[in-house]
Amino acid sequence: MSISLSGIGASAGIAIAKAFRYEEPDLTVEKKTGVDAAKEIAAFDKALEKSRAELEDIKEKARQDMGEEHAEIFSAHLLVLSDPEFVDAVRQKVQDDSVNASFALRELADQFITMFESMDNEYMKERAADIRDVSKRVLSHLLGKPIVSLAELNEEVIIVGEDLTPSDTAQLNKAFVKGFVTNIGGRTSHSAIMARSLEIPAVVGTKTVTEETAQHAMVIVDGISGDVIINPDEDQLQAYRRKQEDFARQKEEWAKLKNEPSKTKDGHHVELVANIGTPDDLEGVESNGGEGVGLYRTEFLYMGRSELPSEEEQYEAYSRVVKAMGDRPVVIRTLDIGGDKELSYLDLPEEMNPFLGFRAIRLCLEMQDMFRTQLRALLRAGAHGNLKVMFPMIATLQEFREAKKVLEEEKEKLVSEGTPVSDNLEVGIMVEIPSTAVMAPQFAKEVDFFSIGTNDLIQYTMAADRMNERVSYLYQPYSPAILNLVKMVIDASHKEGKWTGMCGEMAGDPIAVPLLVGLGLDEFSMSATSILPARTQLTGFTKEEAERAAEEALTLSTDEEVKALVEKQFTLS
Amino acid sequence: MSISLSGIGASAGIAIAKAFRYEEPDLTVEKKTGVDAAKEIAAFDKALEKSRAELEDIKEKARQDMGEEHAEIFSAHLLVLSDPEFVDAVRQKVQDDSVNASFALRELADQFITMFESMDNEYMKERAADIRDVSKRVLSHLLGKPIVSLAELNEEVIIVGEDLTPSDTAQLNKAFVKGFVTNIGGRTSHSAIMARSLEIPAVVGTKTVTEETAQHAMVIVDGISGDVIINPDEDQLQAYRRKQEDFARQKEEWAKLKNEPSKTKDGHHVELVANIGTPDDLEGVESNGGEGVGLYRTEFLYMGRSELPSEEEQYEAYSRVVKAMGDRPVVIRTLDIGGDKELSYLDLPEEMNPFLGFRAIRLCLEMQDMFRTQLRALLRAGAHGNLKVMFPMIATLQEFREAKKVLEEEKEKLVSEGTPVSDNLEVGIMVEIPSTAVMAPQFAKEVDFFSIGTNDLIQYTMAADRMNERVSYLYQPYSPAILNLVKMVIDASHKEGKWTGMCGEMAGDPIAVPLLVGLGLDEFSMSATSILPARTQLTGFTKEEAERAAEEALTLSTDEEVKALVEKQFTLS
Repeated sequence: MSISLSGIGASAGIAIAKAFRYEEPDLTVEKKTGVDAAKEIAAFDKALEKSRAELEDIKEKARQDMGEEHAEIFSAHLLVLSDPEFVDAVRQKVQDDSVNASFALRELADQFITMFESMDNEYMKERAADIRDVSKRVLSHLLGKPIVSLAELNEEVIIVGEDLTPSDTAQLNKAFVKGFVTNIGGRTSHSAIMARSLEIPAVVGTKTVTEETAQHAMVIVDGISGDVIINPDEDQLQAYRRKQEDFARQKEEWAKLKNEPSKTKDGHHVELVANIGTPDDLEGVESNGGEGVGLYRTEFLYMGRSELPSEEEQYEAYSRVVKAMGDRPVVIRTLDIGGDKELSYLDLPEEMNPFLGFRAIRLCLEMQDMFRTQLRALLRAGAHGNLKVMFPMIATLQEFREAKKVLEEEKEKLVSEGTPVSDNLEVGIMVEIPSTAVMAPQFAKEVDFFSIGTNDLIQYTMAADRMNERVSYLYQPYSPAILNLVKMVIDASHKEGKWTGMCGEMAGDPIAVPLLVGLGLDEFSMSATSILPARTQLTGFTKEEAERAAEEALTLSTDEEVKALVEKQFTLS
Repeated sequence: MSISLSGIGASAGIAIAKAFRYEEPDLTVEKKTGVDAAKEIAAFDKALEKSRAELEDIKEKARQDMGEEHAEIFSAHLLVLSDPEFVDAVRQKVQDDSVNASFALRELADQFITMFESMDNEYMKERAADIRDVSKRVLSHLLGKPIVSLAELNEEVIIVGEDLTPSDTAQLNKAFVKGFVTNIGGRTSHSAIMARSLEIPAVVGTKTVTEETAQHAMVIVDGISGDVIINPDEDQLQAYRRKQEDFARQKEEWAKLKNEPSKTKDGHHVELVANIGTPDDLEGVESNGGEGVGLYRTEFLYMGRSELPSEEEQYEAYSRVVKAMGDRPVVIRTLDIGGDKELSYLDLPEEMNPFLGFRAIRLCLEMQDMFRTQLRALLRAGAHGNLKVMFPMIATLQEFREAKKVLEEEKEKLVSEGTPVSDNLEVGIMVEIPSTAVMAPQFAKEVDFFSIGTNDLIQYTMAADRMNERVSYLYQPYSPAILNLVKMVIDASHKEGKWTGMCGEMAGDPIAVPLLVGLGLDEFSMSATSILPARTQLTGFTKEEAERAAEEALTLSTDEEVKALVEKQFTLS
């Protein structure tokens, strides 16, 4: 009997393969006394050695596939393995109490974890997480129940699990992992973003896939519709194989537009650009025909390390991107940290509502040394190409004016030092807070451009945390409320001769694209892999058709009505 | 040398008196062994007895001054004092280990607190808080350092402290407590709201008043401006005594308007109504000339108890208010729980961002039994007067339609049972989520009225938790963004022949009142004590003057500019 589930299509494409259930082994430990301490210590040392070898492999793989930043977490894990405070304490306990090594390890790991977690300090809490991961790995070797390494899969599978963590996704081998399905997560969760970046079909948020799927059961993943079929029958298999071929053909069609401009049927041009996290992502921008970079998230430069990146280091990264893009625009966002993104070495306060808290520009305006270092690096990198800078989480004109003033001060200093800087740097803001959208007419007089960050704008406008499953039904990009706010921003910018882009998930969403064209959006920044489908979709309608649909959508009552309108009138590639 | 501090004026009026520093005694405990166990146990029992007597007094005082709901927390404390699991454990430990009672008490209290706090359950966490409070009280008697009871003050003082908790404010005796000043808090914090309700001048959020003020130092509290002067010189004392007299005279002026209608200079009428929490608050509504109730918060009915209130119990409370108001309108808000307001017996999940979480209507639509019980009670109470119902935290039309459908279903059931119900019940919504303000034109076709909840609307529109000190600078009621959203709502309602009220703090704010009149707001719901000042202020300007100012304010760039505009053109009573 085939079972159908529906979740959230997180990464387009069809995958058909056997399920590989990814779950943690049972690492329950029994206490044994009167053991042969020397033997236990030898076993412990061997388990340490195996864990070290494993971690070295994982780290190297992460480095190759996803870049230095992503590999850093495993350096931290390796450090735990050689930390004498921890490792010697285990040996000592085995010796002193004549207990088995697995028991001693678990006891001490728990002690360390409790201690670190009780400290009101994010860095220490991260250390607790590291110790938890690492001790689990060592324990698995001691107990002879090794943790399955996703890197070691050697047949084609679809991974089925509760969720995939960063360390899980870091190990995925695209040659064998054909797709994945999880119980939890949404389109903007970490695993979904990784799936799109790796171009692996994925469905998240199915709630029950782990309950419904037996090990090695055949599974179909439709990352386009969000459907998952377990134990498909022959008809279903055939139908989805056809879909798979159609999708492959479609990808070939898309690829033909790689070097074409992005134009509607009647020749209206919009800019299709990419969101990137590190200079390594430029390869994807090129291979997908991106017309530039619409959002370079600089957070990764600050993450997975123990101190702030220097001005030189930042200058290197920014210039690499700016130079590589040549004349094409590169919009770099200043540090957006805080909220759900933490930096261990900054020691930020715990907040009751971090999404409504001390983050991004709010934090940068207070930690001005850090901010000024980044601005200097940006100004210098701007000398090498078409760089634009934008500030995240701007809520008031006061904040924008203050941030711009700091930028001007650093520019003057650099100029007076004789350092080359960009001489025509555009300075814009993210519009991701409702107040800023409503006050767009006032902002448009002072900023050079707007970039609408829909992920945050939607969650604030609907007052619903998009990571919270119980209210995620309110995360409605097609809500007429969102469309009306987007219109306010675009209209205000055009009235002052400025331009508006969008760099949230919505910019690459086939339901949203015609509406956004109709509302007059100038620049669409998205995952590189969404660029060619969007470019294809654009060729299917005229500006006027889009405008008519947008006008109607603004007056509709619900997101469902808007979705139905677009589905009726447009082809969704 | 006099010291001047400035904080947030939380409750209007001038107070001049000696400082009473309110702080917790040092309850450090030393371990003593080999003690006379019988003697220690006797001392412990005596401390228990003293604590019980104290708590009974506090509870009775809370009941008299603030009503049954506020007294409930002390019933919980009294329960801890007679809990054998806890109390006997202390006696046992003294006996078994021959340790001093204070040490045994502290050890066991810590154990219980740690245990309860580690449970992922709000009810248990509250129990931990109860045990902490109660064991502190018992310990204080054991150590002979009794906790100062605010109820026992017998000379005129100004209380100076870090913050005042609900149990602190419950004990305030208005005869002796002339005012208070705290380090933390804002206009909408618990202590500020209590101060206004008790009509005690207060300044909160001074950050350093506890550092700057010596015990018994003379202090001036200006709850109007937010200024605090410590050790004032003779000139300052004289100036503030004059201000105090002016304020008293002003209050007399205000009182003259008690039975007058609320009209601008040129006779434009708006409705000035009160926010209430329990039927006991009606007294204040009458004595301050309220034209009705604009917001009856039903949460208190659900709080400080161990199970949901029955339909009968709710019916009693609602009808009492509706009957007392006669023809005057009573707007009752359905349960707004979740976020920062928890009900121990509902066992809601912990959320990362509770303000963006599962609360109010979101929760009621899922816990429909609870919701239906309340709606039945409301429908029945409506038969006795001019009741209107509104739903909190509506973000989409789907939610409103679903809530209204549930209401209609219960109405039909009651009618078919032959129970009298309101036959012309107006059903409205709170506008406190940006999406709802933006979509007001769509909502206005389906709702009977809007009531703008500014406390939440501002925090979502600015994406800033108003309780978070680090971002509270973004809580800007006068932001042109907020004013534009308010305008959208009012215009949309009038276009459909509906009315708009406001029930947040902003409705009674002298800076906001002229602008809101200018924008066309129909109903202003505020703390009862703000009604007469607002009525007085209204008589000072014409509708047209207000409209001109509002129109200009909409186009200004910052909240500061808006504030300056109003201050220049209007009298702020």
